[in-house]
Amino acid sequence: MRTPTVLAGMALAALLSTPAMAERDQAENALEYRQGVFNAMAWSFGPMAAMVKNKMPYDAALFTKHAERVAFLAHLPLEGFIPDSRVGDTTAKQDVWDNADDFKAKMETMIEESARLATISKGGDLDAIRPQFGAVGNSCKSCHDDYRTE
Amino acid sequence: MRTPTVLAGMALAALLSTPAMAERDQAENALEYRQGVFNAMAWSFGPMAAMVKNKMPYDAALFTKHAERVAFLAHLPLEGFIPDSRVGDTTAKQDVWDNADDFKAKMETMIEESARLATISKGGDLDAIRPQFGAVGNSCKSCHDDYRTE
Repeated sequence: MRTPTVLAGMALAALLSTPAMAERDQAENALEYRQGVFNAMAWSFGPMAAMVKNKMPYDAALFTKHAERVAFLAHLPLEGFIPDSRVGDTTAKQDVWDNADDFKAKMETMIEESARLATISKGGDLDAIRPQFGAVGNSCKSCHDDYRTE
Repeated sequence: MRTPTVLAGMALAALLSTPAMAERDQAENALEYRQGVFNAMAWSFGPMAAMVKNKMPYDAALFTKHAERVAFLAHLPLEGFIPDSRVGDTTAKQDVWDNADDFKAKMETMIEESARLATISKGGDLDAIRPQFGAVGNSCKSCHDDYRTE
Protein backbone atom coordinates (compact mmCIF):
# COMPACT_ATOMS: atom_id res chain seq x y z
CA MET A 1 0.00 0.00 0.00
CA ARG A 2 2.89 2.32 0.64
CA THR A 3 4.02 2.86 -2.92
CA PRO A 4 0.79 4.16 -4.49
CA THR A 5 0.20 6.36 -1.45
CA VAL A 6 3.62 7.92 -1.73
CA LEU A 7 3.21 8.29 -5.48
CA ALA A 8 0.07 10.35 -5.04
CA GLY A 9 1.98 12.77 -2.86
CA MET A 10 4.71 12.90 -5.45
CA ALA A 11 2.26 13.65 -8.23
CA LEU A 12 0.85 16.56 -6.28
CA ALA A 13 4.26 18.03 -5.77
CA ALA A 14 5.25 17.64 -9.39
CA LEU A 15 4.04 21.10 -10.32
CA LEU A 16 6.55 22.56 -7.92
CA SER A 17 9.53 20.62 -9.18
CA THR A 18 9.39 20.73 -12.97
CA PRO A 19 13.02 21.00 -14.09
CA ALA A 20 12.28 23.22 -17.12
CA MET A 21 12.25 26.93 -16.34
CA ALA A 22 12.69 26.08 -12.67
CA GLU A 23 13.98 29.51 -11.76
CA ARG A 24 11.13 31.47 -13.32
CA ASP A 25 8.63 29.01 -11.89
CA GLN A 26 10.03 29.46 -8.43
CA ALA A 27 9.72 33.26 -8.69
CA GLU A 28 6.09 32.87 -9.73
CA ASN A 29 5.49 30.35 -6.98
CA ALA A 30 6.95 32.83 -4.51
CA LEU A 31 4.68 35.58 -5.82
CA GLU A 32 1.59 33.39 -5.58
CA TYR A 33 2.66 32.22 -2.15
CA ARG A 34 3.15 35.66 -0.58
CA GLN A 35 0.06 37.13 -2.26
CA GLY A 36 -1.88 34.08 -1.11
CA VAL A 37 -0.80 34.59 2.48
CA PHE A 38 -1.75 38.27 2.34
CA ASN A 39 -5.16 37.34 0.91
CA ALA A 40 -5.68 34.88 3.74
CA MET A 41 -4.76 37.61 6.25
CA ALA A 42 -7.16 40.06 4.58
CA TRP A 43 -9.96 37.50 4.89
CA SER A 44 -9.45 37.41 8.66
CA PHE A 45 -9.17 41.19 8.84
CA GLY A 46 -12.69 41.56 7.46
CA PRO A 47 -14.74 40.30 10.42
CA MET A 48 -12.30 41.75 12.95
CA ALA A 49 -12.60 45.21 11.39
CA ALA A 50 -16.38 44.88 11.25
CA MET A 51 -16.49 44.07 14.97
CA VAL A 52 -14.09 46.85 15.91
CA LYS A 53 -16.24 49.31 13.91
CA ASN A 54 -19.46 48.02 15.51
CA LYS A 55 -20.73 46.97 12.08
CA MET A 56 -21.08 43.40 13.30
CA PRO A 57 -21.89 42.10 16.79
CA TYR A 58 -18.77 41.39 18.81
CA ASP A 59 -18.18 37.62 19.02
CA ALA A 60 -15.17 36.99 21.25
CA ALA A 61 -14.48 33.45 19.99
CA LEU A 62 -14.73 34.51 16.35
CA PHE A 63 -12.48 37.50 16.93
CA THR A 64 -9.87 35.35 18.67
CA LYS A 65 -9.99 32.73 15.91
CA HIS A 66 -9.16 35.34 13.30
CA ALA A 67 -6.59 37.12 15.48
CA GLU A 68 -4.78 33.81 15.99
CA ARG A 69 -4.84 33.11 12.28
CA VAL A 70 -3.31 36.49 11.50
CA ALA A 71 -0.68 35.95 14.20
CA PHE A 72 0.23 32.62 12.57
CA LEU A 73 0.11 33.90 9.00
CA ALA A 74 2.21 36.96 9.83
CA HIS A 75 5.27 34.70 10.02
CA LEU A 76 4.85 33.44 6.47
CA PRO A 77 5.15 36.15 3.81
CA LEU A 78 8.78 37.16 4.30
CA GLU A 79 10.22 33.97 2.84
CA GLY A 80 8.22 34.56 -0.33
CA PHE A 81 10.28 37.66 -1.18
CA ILE A 82 13.09 35.59 -2.69
CA PRO A 83 15.71 37.19 -4.97
CA ASP A 84 14.54 38.02 -8.50
CA SER A 85 10.87 37.48 -7.69
CA ARG A 86 9.64 40.96 -8.64
CA VAL A 87 7.57 39.30 -11.36
CA GLY A 88 4.02 39.05 -12.67
CA ASP A 89 1.43 41.34 -11.17
CA THR A 90 3.51 42.06 -8.10
CA THR A 91 2.99 45.33 -6.25
CA ALA A 92 6.32 44.99 -4.45
CA LYS A 93 8.77 47.85 -5.01
CA GLN A 94 12.40 47.11 -5.74
CA ASP A 95 13.09 48.66 -2.32
CA VAL A 96 11.91 45.37 -0.74
CA TRP A 97 15.19 43.86 -1.89
CA ASP A 98 17.32 47.02 -1.80
CA ASN A 99 16.37 47.83 1.82
CA ALA A 100 15.98 44.24 2.95
CA ASP A 101 16.92 44.87 6.58
CA ASP A 102 14.30 47.59 7.02
CA PHE A 103 11.69 45.52 5.18
CA LYS A 104 12.41 42.57 7.45
CA ALA A 105 12.21 44.81 10.55
CA LYS A 106 8.76 46.02 9.47
CA MET A 107 7.65 42.42 8.95
CA GLU A 108 8.89 41.61 12.46
CA THR A 109 6.80 44.49 13.83
CA MET A 110 3.74 43.01 12.13
CA ILE A 111 4.52 39.62 13.70
CA GLU A 112 4.85 41.17 17.17
CA GLU A 113 1.75 43.36 16.95
CA SER A 114 -0.31 40.46 15.60
CA ALA A 115 0.84 38.21 18.44
CA ARG A 116 -0.17 40.93 20.92
CA LEU A 117 -3.59 41.21 19.31
CA ALA A 118 -4.14 37.45 19.60
CA THR A 119 -3.21 37.57 23.28
CA ILE A 120 -5.38 40.60 24.06
CA SER A 121 -8.31 39.21 22.10
CA LYS A 122 -8.52 36.27 24.51
CA GLY A 123 -9.47 38.74 27.23
CA GLY A 124 -12.77 39.32 25.44
CA ASP A 125 -12.72 43.12 25.95
CA LEU A 126 -13.42 44.96 22.71
CA ASP A 127 -12.26 48.27 24.21
CA ALA A 128 -8.86 46.72 24.89
CA ILE A 129 -8.81 45.07 21.47
CA ARG A 130 -9.54 48.23 19.49
CA PRO A 131 -6.21 50.07 19.92
CA GLN A 132 -4.22 46.87 19.36
CA PHE A 133 -6.18 46.15 16.20
CA GLY A 134 -5.15 49.64 15.13
CA ALA A 135 -1.53 48.85 15.96
CA VAL A 136 -1.66 45.80 13.69
CA GLY A 137 -3.20 47.93 10.96
CA ASN A 138 -0.44 50.48 11.38
CA SER A 139 2.21 47.79 11.09
CA CYS A 140 0.69 46.72 7.75
CA LYS A 141 0.32 50.29 6.55
CA SER A 142 3.86 51.30 7.43
CA CYS A 143 5.19 48.55 5.18
CA HIS A 144 2.67 49.23 2.40
CA ASP A 145 3.60 52.93 2.41
CA ASP A 146 7.26 52.18 1.77
CA TYR A 147 7.28 48.95 -0.15
CA ARG A 148 4.06 48.59 -2.12
CA THR A 149 3.12 50.39 -5.33
CA GLU A 150 -0.33 51.97 -5.88
CA MET B 1 -2.78 58.53 19.89
CA ARG B 2 -5.61 56.06 19.84
CA THR B 3 -7.70 57.60 17.10
CA PRO B 4 -5.15 57.71 14.27
CA THR B 5 -4.01 54.20 15.14
CA VAL B 6 -7.50 52.85 14.96
CA LEU B 7 -8.14 54.77 11.76
CA ALA B 8 -5.21 53.11 10.05
CA GLY B 9 -6.67 49.74 10.83
CA MET B 10 -10.01 50.91 9.50
CA ALA B 11 -8.46 52.15 6.28
CA LEU B 12 -6.86 48.78 5.71
CA ALA B 13 -10.13 47.00 6.14
CA ALA B 14 -12.02 49.37 3.88
CA LEU B 15 -11.42 47.22 0.81
CA LEU B 16 -13.32 44.45 2.49
CA SER B 17 -16.33 46.50 3.45
CA THR B 18 -17.21 48.62 0.44
CA PRO B 19 -21.02 48.72 0.40
CA ALA B 20 -21.33 48.81 -3.41
CA MET B 21 -21.45 45.40 -5.00
CA ALA B 22 -20.80 43.89 -1.61
CA GLU B 23 -22.09 40.47 -2.55
CA ARG B 24 -19.97 40.08 -5.67
CA ASP B 25 -16.96 41.43 -3.81
CA GLN B 26 -17.42 38.90 -1.05
CA ALA B 27 -17.53 36.05 -3.57
CA GLU B 28 -14.29 37.31 -5.12
CA ASN B 29 -12.74 37.76 -1.69
CA ALA B 30 -13.72 34.17 -0.89
CA LEU B 31 -12.14 32.95 -4.13
CA GLU B 32 -8.90 34.84 -3.48
CA TYR B 33 -8.91 33.64 0.10
CA ARG B 34 -9.26 29.93 -0.61
CA GLN B 35 -6.88 30.02 -3.59
CA GLY B 36 -4.44 31.97 -1.44
CA VAL B 37 -4.56 29.34 1.29
CA PHE B 38 -4.02 26.55 -1.26
CA ASN B 39 -1.05 28.45 -2.72
CA ALA B 40 0.44 28.80 0.75
CA MET B 41 -0.02 25.05 1.29
CA ALA B 42 1.61 24.29 -2.07
CA TRP B 43 4.62 26.41 -1.08
CA SER B 44 5.15 24.21 1.97
CA PHE B 45 4.59 21.04 -0.04
CA GLY B 46 7.57 21.90 -2.27
CA PRO B 47 10.44 21.34 0.18
CA MET B 48 8.65 18.45 1.91
CA ALA B 49 8.21 16.63 -1.41
CA ALA B 50 11.83 17.31 -2.35
CA MET B 51 13.01 15.78 0.93
CA VAL B 52 10.71 12.77 0.64
CA LYS B 53 12.02 12.18 -2.88
CA ASN B 54 15.65 12.57 -1.78
CA LYS B 55 16.04 15.54 -4.12
CA MET B 56 17.01 17.73 -1.18
CA PRO B 57 18.86 16.76 2.02
CA TYR B 58 16.47 15.86 4.83
CA ASP B 59 16.30 18.70 7.37
CA ALA B 60 14.08 17.62 10.26
CA ALA B 61 13.40 21.14 11.57
CA LEU B 62 12.56 22.47 8.12
CA PHE B 63 10.28 19.52 7.39
CA THR B 64 8.45 19.97 10.70
CA LYS B 65 8.05 23.71 10.12
CA HIS B 66 6.32 23.09 6.82
CA ALA B 67 4.28 20.14 8.11
CA GLU B 68 2.98 22.33 10.94
CA ARG B 69 2.11 25.10 8.51
CA VAL B 70 0.13 22.70 6.34
CA ALA B 71 -1.63 21.31 9.42
CA PHE B 72 -2.65 24.85 10.39
CA LEU B 73 -3.59 25.96 6.89
CA ALA B 74 -5.67 22.82 6.29
CA HIS B 75 -8.35 24.24 8.59
CA LEU B 76 -8.78 27.39 6.53
CA PRO B 77 -10.03 26.76 2.98
CA LEU B 78 -13.48 25.34 3.74
CA GLU B 79 -14.96 28.62 4.90
CA GLY B 80 -13.96 30.20 1.60
CA PHE B 81 -16.44 28.03 -0.32
CA ILE B 82 -19.34 30.33 0.51
CA PRO B 83 -22.61 30.15 -1.46
CA ASP B 84 -22.51 31.68 -4.94
CA SER B 85 -18.73 31.96 -5.00
CA ARG B 86 -18.12 29.86 -8.12
CA VAL B 87 -16.73 32.99 -9.75
CA GLY B 88 -13.66 34.28 -11.56
CA ASP B 89 -10.98 31.79 -12.48
CA THR B 90 -12.20 29.22 -10.00
CA THR B 91 -11.50 25.55 -10.68
CA ALA B 92 -14.17 24.45 -8.21
CA LYS B 93 -16.93 22.29 -9.68
CA GLN B 94 -20.55 22.98 -8.81
CA ASP B 95 -20.42 19.65 -6.93
CA VAL B 96 -18.58 21.44 -4.12
CA TRP B 97 -21.90 23.04 -3.22
CA ASP B 98 -24.20 20.25 -4.45
CA ASN B 99 -22.38 17.56 -2.43
CA ALA B 100 -21.38 19.81 0.46
CA ASP B 101 -21.36 17.06 3.09
CA ASP B 102 -18.97 14.87 1.11
CA PHE B 103 -16.78 17.85 0.23
CA LYS B 104 -16.58 18.79 3.89
CA ALA B 105 -15.77 15.20 4.87
CA LYS B 106 -12.86 15.18 2.41
CA MET B 107 -11.60 18.47 3.85
CA GLU B 108 -11.79 16.93 7.32
CA THR B 109 -9.67 14.00 6.11
CA MET B 110 -7.06 16.46 4.86
CA ILE B 111 -7.08 18.17 8.27
CA GLU B 112 -6.62 14.86 10.07
CA GLU B 113 -3.89 13.52 7.78
CA SER B 114 -2.01 16.84 7.92
CA ALA B 115 -2.14 16.84 11.71
CA ARG B 116 -0.76 13.29 11.72
CA LEU B 117 2.07 14.32 9.40
CA ALA B 118 3.01 17.22 11.69
CA THR B 119 3.10 14.87 14.68
CA ILE B 120 5.11 12.19 12.90
CA SER B 121 7.53 14.72 11.43
CA LYS B 122 8.65 15.66 14.96
CA GLY B 123 10.08 12.15 15.29
CA GLY B 124 12.69 13.05 12.70
CA ASP B 125 12.44 9.72 10.86
CA LEU B 126 12.07 10.20 7.12
CA ASP B 127 11.07 6.56 6.62
CA ALA B 128 8.13 7.10 8.98
CA ILE B 129 7.31 10.44 7.36
CA ARG B 130 7.19 9.15 3.80
CA PRO B 131 3.94 7.11 3.95
CA GLN B 132 2.16 9.82 5.94
CA PHE B 133 3.25 12.46 3.43
CA GLY B 134 1.68 10.19 0.83
CA ALA B 135 -1.51 10.01 2.89
CA VAL B 136 -1.74 13.80 2.95
CA GLY B 137 -1.17 13.87 -0.81
CA ASN B 138 -3.93 11.30 -1.26
CA SER B 139 -6.32 13.39 0.83
CA CYS B 140 -5.66 16.35 -1.48
CA LYS B 141 -5.95 14.24 -4.61
CA SER B 142 -9.20 12.59 -3.58
CA CYS B 143 -10.83 16.01 -3.32
CA HIS B 144 -9.22 17.33 -6.51
CA ASP B 145 -10.45 14.29 -8.43
CA ASP B 146 -14.07 14.93 -7.48
CA TYR B 147 -14.29 18.66 -7.03
CA ARG B 148 -11.71 20.41 -9.19
CA THR B 149 -11.85 20.94 -12.95
CA GLU B 150 -8.81 20.31 -15.23
